[in-house]
Amino acid sequence: MSRKFAAITGVQGYVPDYVMTNKELETMVDTSDEWIRTRTGIETRHILKGEGLGTSDMMVEAVKGLLEKTNTRPEEVDMVIGATITGDMPFPDTANIVCDKIGIKNAFSYDINAACSGFLFALTTGAKFVESGSHKKVIVMGGDKMSSIIDYTDRTTCVIFGDGCGAVMLEPSEEHGVMDSIHHSDGSGRHYLNLKAGGSTKPITHEALDNRENFVYQNGRPVFKAAVSGMSDVVKTIMENNDLSKDDIAWLVPHQANMRIIETVSRMADFPMERVMININRYGNTTAGTLPLCLWDYEDQLKKGDNIILTAFGGGFTWGAIWIKWAY
Amino acid sequence: MSRKFAAITGVQGYVPDYVMTNKELETMVDTSDEWIRTRTGIETRHILKGEGLGTSDMMVEAVKGLLEKTNTRPEEVDMVIGATITGDMPFPDTANIVCDKIGIKNAFSYDINAACSGFLFALTTGAKFVESGSHKKVIVMGGDKMSSIIDYTDRTTCVIFGDGCGAVMLEPSEEHGVMDSIHHSDGSGRHYLNLKAGGSTKPITHEALDNRENFVYQNGRPVFKAAVSGMSDVVKTIMENNDLSKDDIAWLVPHQANMRIIETVSRMADFPMERVMININRYGNTTAGTLPLCLWDYEDQLKKGDNIILTAFGGGFTWGAIWIKWAY
Repeated sequence: MSRKFAAITGVQGYVPDYVMTNKELETMVDTSDEWIRTRTGIETRHILKGEGLGTSDMMVEAVKGLLEKTNTRPEEVDMVIGATITGDMPFPDTANIVCDKIGIKNAFSYDINAACSGFLFALTTGAKFVESGSHKKVIVMGGDKMSSIIDYTDRTTCVIFGDGCGAVMLEPSEEHGVMDSIHHSDGSGRHYLNLKAGGSTKPITHEALDNRENFVYQNGRPVFKAAVSGMSDVVKTIMENNDLSKDDIAWLVPHQANMRIIETVSRMADFPMERVMININRYGNTTAGTLPLCLWDYEDQLKKGDNIILTAFGGGFTWGAIWIKWAY
Repeated sequence: MSRKFAAITGVQGYVPDYVMTNKELETMVDTSDEWIRTRTGIETRHILKGEGLGTSDMMVEAVKGLLEKTNTRPEEVDMVIGATITGDMPFPDTANIVCDKIGIKNAFSYDINAACSGFLFALTTGAKFVESGSHKKVIVMGGDKMSSIIDYTDRTTCVIFGDGCGAVMLEPSEEHGVMDSIHHSDGSGRHYLNLKAGGSTKPITHEALDNRENFVYQNGRPVFKAAVSGMSDVVKTIMENNDLSKDDIAWLVPHQANMRIIETVSRMADFPMERVMININRYGNTTAGTLPLCLWDYEDQLKKGDNIILTAFGGGFTWGAIWIKWAY
């Protein structure tokens, strides 16, 4: 019996219209365009404006485009996974809401919470359903409305994050798709990157709001160190495990957290920057949205059979890498 | 090549020590022990008391017991999925935190959000990883600290929910385990059962707190109707699809939301109440915790080879059924 693979047969991204520039941030916190560019590589990020709009509103746009592009009727989709830490509501899950808004009636759906590695973990998960033969058209979405959990008085975080999302279609294939994956978690990293209030250990109170504990907290230095060693390690390992040299790999697709992290990972994994996908300059860190947004932006440059390595690192800590053979 | 199954090789539950009686609720809201018993079947529920304690603190207890029971060293576990809507923090995910607290160092982990169907969806997901051969010891946890999102001035919800969790170990088997599953989602149900504030459409504000929008909202009647038709439908379908008669099924394990729902599902699915697992009287609705808590309570009565059907319905709406051959 030949192995069945889960191939990405389409990708679509979405970022909201509103562009927040570094100049605008200069008016909000003590920072400068020059500082942001040199320290993070970010020039702009997109922000979802509008009362009552949430992550599902962005995901709906991405999935609508994906269905059109892959010539799929909504009722053909049989599973939808949403990777996000900024779902519309604490429950129900946002994937359900996306399906309802689009008319995807025959899918079961749920959300995965793994922060910046959310899309990576969700992609492996969706692939398992396709590989097993139980599901034929699985949509994996990743994205966040980070502006809903960012403190725009904290200059260390507010310059980094943006809103956006992307989605891929997974379908069975004999030769293309997810070939291998590596995943790690280390909960001791929770102390360096988290959102303290709003969960069961610390439900939000008036006091928590006053203390601004309803926003992302990040201690940058330990996150940077763990991110570069984690991502470069899994990239090297997945290549070694599969006898892949850097010449065999068409593209490295790293989580877009910070340009310096991307450059350091490229150097530590000995992979040339010319073949590293980058769009952090335009979108900032969209958390679970970065990987599909990269694939979307670079889709025209991808060729059938290309070997691609996705890698991510984020809150948890969570990290990993996936080797994909591009299917179209 | 013979098919590989994901067998449950152990189950462990945990409920906190503090017991909230109907009498105590009589002192908090306009209700009565008699009303609660006759309308819901609930006599007591357990509540996690203690500053800063969250869902992970309960899951840690369940998983510690599970590791001991299944004679598993923490480092042998290679994946942990946590089903919860009341994670310790909005991010990182609670499964990560549980692993770190216990010394599970070689697993990757994430949380699934599918409300009351969370454990069901997570169990199918974990089973896919085991069936594929990529993972050998997968822990699936389900549980919620519902007291962190319940309004104890709302008599329609506060009498129903409780805190608790359970966890199962999944391992490869040639003949026992998850045999079949059915899953559904319908996001139009989000209007009847939700938690309005705290997500990206409505981040929590002082006003949202004053309006008590940080608590579970439920419109009971449409949820009841959808729950009984949804669960009885999937139970009948999974039996038909697999040529199982009610005599072939040792136990039906329904989500414990309300005794009347359980009785109606039993009647509509034509399945005798004597073989329906029930513990709602002691724990109330623990959301993602109900199914593993049932398996834990009834573990002594289960025999190797027993056919068991799990079914759940909850926020989303999400619902489904899983047919399991018990492995020990």
